[in-house]
Amino acid sequence: MFSDGMLLRVYIAESAKIGKKPAYKYLVEMFKARGFPGCTVFRGMIGYGHEKTIHTVDVLNFSMDLPIVIDVVDTKDRILSIVDEVEQLVEHGLVITQDVKMGRKR
Amino acid sequence: MFSDGMLLRVYIAESAKIGKKPAYKYLVEMFKARGFPGCTVFRGMIGYGHEKTIHTVDVLNFSMDLPIVIDVVDTKDRILSIVDEVEQLVEHGLVITQDVKMGRKR
Amino acid sequence: MFSDGMLLRVYIAESAKIGKKPAYKYLVEMFKARGFPGCTVFRGMIGYGHEKTIHTVDVLNFSMDLPIVIDVVDTKDRILSIVDEVEQLVEHGLVITQDVKMGRKR
Repeated sequence: MFSDGMLLRVYIAESAKIGKKPAYKYLVEMFKARGFPGCTVFRGMIGYGHEKTIHTVDVLNFSMDLPIVIDVVDTKDRILSIVDEVEQLVEHGLVITQDVKMGRKR
Repeated sequence: MFSDGMLLRVYIAESAKIGKKPAYKYLVEMFKARGFPGCTVFRGMIGYGHEKTIHTVDVLNFSMDLPIVIDVVDTKDRILSIVDEVEQLVEHGLVITQDVKMGRKR
Repeated sequence: MFSDGMLLRVYIAESAKIGKKPAYKYLVEMFKARGFPGCTVFRGMIGYGHEKTIHTVDVLNFSMDLPIVIDVVDTKDRILSIVDEVEQLVEHGLVITQDVKMGRKR
């Protein structure tokens, strides 16, 4: 059975911090602590725009500071309840939301 | 030329099985056998919620059971014709659909 | 603050070329040269349909020609201004767009 849901996605640099933690770890732990049912983190291979300083593509190819993407899917209400907080925590990067239909299996 | 389409995305654990096969291989082969024009599989770096047992983030960091995401894009009718079957095959995980505009080149 | 935006995503083979360059590098450099604020490239683990010749899954497992996905997010107007050009540059593969809400931090 599919129901209305929302995808929250964060594009961020792997080096980004929230407090003393890597930002992506901080966010995954936050989503888990708040009871979001699942979260998936991907590491990109190149990119730009995730940081204050925009690297050239050639530099990024040899950089260890890779782009990270974090996906969280839940009901619209649940995602909207956290999205402003997430945006405020992310110092440099991009936060997007998308409407989805979802079917989750436990 | 762009036309209306639909993205089907499956979030699943790499260890998940359908029958005796890794679930992601089973699904890719099924999509191909049914004539879907393309399919892309990504491996995430960490996550939770793709399995029955929810691991802590720290455990997942050192785990070989990584999250997998499978994307398939086709017409809305074609995706809707398979989405319930996919959801039933996926024992633990998440299946979402999203409306897209698509332009496919062969 | 979230505003309306659009996600442009390109699914392509890692081996694909535009001119003499790898297509994904060509596209990232093009997006950067045109002033798009960010771009993220991911390498998939298996897939089919990104190339003229459709490989079997088993072949792809051992292939070095992996699927690549490129995400770019900007205003709808900005994305629509480039999407036809991108589709024409991509010889084999898939280009999709999706409406999103976005909050970008610099």
